[in-house]
Amino acid sequence: MNITIVGLGLIGGSLAKATKSRTSHTVMGCDLDEEVKLFARLTGAIDRQFDAEFLSESNLILLALRPHAAIAWLREHAPNIAKTAVVVDMCGTKREICDQLGRIAAENGFIYVGGHPMAGKECGGFVNASDTLFDGASMILTPDSSIDMKTLEMLKNYFTDIGFANLTFSNPEEHDQIIAYTSQLAHIVSGAYVKSPTAAKRRGFSAGSFKDMTRVARLDEDMWTELMLQNRDYLCEELDILIEKLSEYKTALQANDANALRECLKEGRLCKANAGGN
Amino acid sequence: MNITIVGLGLIGGSLAKATKSRTSHTVMGCDLDEEVKLFARLTGAIDRQFDAEFLSESNLILLALRPHAAIAWLREHAPNIAKTAVVVDMCGTKREICDQLGRIAAENGFIYVGGHPMAGKECGGFVNASDTLFDGASMILTPDSSIDMKTLEMLKNYFTDIGFANLTFSNPEEHDQIIAYTSQLAHIVSGAYVKSPTAAKRRGFSAGSFKDMTRVARLDEDMWTELMLQNRDYLCEELDILIEKLSEYKTALQANDANALRECLKEGRLCKANAGGN
Repeated sequence: MNITIVGLGLIGGSLAKATKSRTSHTVMGCDLDEEVKLFARLTGAIDRQFDAEFLSESNLILLALRPHAAIAWLREHAPNIAKTAVVVDMCGTKREICDQLGRIAAENGFIYVGGHPMAGKECGGFVNASDTLFDGASMILTPDSSIDMKTLEMLKNYFTDIGFANLTFSNPEEHDQIIAYTSQLAHIVSGAYVKSPTAAKRRGFSAGSFKDMTRVARLDEDMWTELMLQNRDYLCEELDILIEKLSEYKTALQANDANALRECLKEGRLCKANAGGN
Repeated sequence: MNITIVGLGLIGGSLAKATKSRTSHTVMGCDLDEEVKLFARLTGAIDRQFDAEFLSESNLILLALRPHAAIAWLREHAPNIAKTAVVVDMCGTKREICDQLGRIAAENGFIYVGGHPMAGKECGGFVNASDTLFDGASMILTPDSSIDMKTLEMLKNYFTDIGFANLTFSNPEEHDQIIAYTSQLAHIVSGAYVKSPTAAKRRGFSAGSFKDMTRVARLDEDMWTELMLQNRDYLCEELDILIEKLSEYKTALQANDANALRECLKEGRLCKANAGGN
């Protein structure tokens, strides 16, 4: 089929590379950066750069842009999208984007499904994109009730063809609540953790835990600011819970209370066991 | 040389296995668990079980016990340790243990050096011990000013022979301050993080960050209670700093303040860059 990928950063670039290396689909790539588009074409990650005719003949359009840019792009190009086309965005929050993109799709008669690939890296951009980025990962989709099985079947085939292990179905509300915890909170904690003045003295004093704890502090602050503000209600709830739990350890330590501290540590171990292996 | 390893858990078991698989030293292993000692001997991780004569002929005695158990063991066996022997403990905090073990060593005329291997796993015990556990890791030593170069040279040769990449020298005060941050705080954050009720819903919604953030929540609460209480002054300081930094993100989110949030995220990224790659 004909696939248009809008945005050739880490996610869009990886979609393009995985599609070209593992399927026979034709890929058109769009990006604001002319050099990225040229490089993508020269390396075979895309077959062609933007033209309106190919867009109108695209069966699948993947928006790998930040939320506001994705909304603006789709609004501009909606009249040129076929009624039978399926549009999927890759944004990290889903309530606002699904509402806005769903409305544009309904007004213009094509199909829209919200998406969020559970894959990433600390370093972004096309240069870090990889055709193996999605291997074994989960692809979250938030289809509304109007989406037919044929569309879902097509999306399942496509995403598993390019490496995803499975699809996870959700709705925008549930997605945003869980992602506030599993991803956004982790990015805040990593950044907050590494701000201690002690970090500067740590060489030779760390095994794996410091590294794991601070890995995702390396992020694109513009993108994450946009995503976190869209999800600030759920994210503030999770921050409150975490700060409260941390304070319980601190209270036990300050009181030199071995029993209370042991209970805090034990509860964490049991919660981890219940949450599963990864 | 003759080496006595006291405690055949994850650390002591790994010391034994690495010593036997990579050196020609003779290893005696001590453990309260008779089955562990037998299993260690049958699998070749130790040459022999405890006898007083071998102890008195040991050149190196490694205490892989919790702090209070290490102090009790050394106090009991000190009269039977050669004046030329070197004792190194593996405890995760160093102020109290170095004070106490150093005093016993001085009273009995042998040599003592505090140690802390920067290696570990979420699952403990001899069964999880491995002769590769220390590969590439840093071995922290906290020798006092009385320790001669010959002793340090022997320790350097031994620890690098069994896999450590290098020695890191410190003093008990500095060690405890940094380890409160790089290791103990990470274990608290992991446990606190995984206590959110949202953790139960997370399947299909996490890439690497949740996994990294909660890995070390799986811990031995008895051991960590003892270690953390010995270090509660520094650990409380680090908890205060972390809670304060987390609160800054929360304030920015609550105020829907994009500039403040972006600054928080950017500061974290820059601190991570300054702290180095791992």
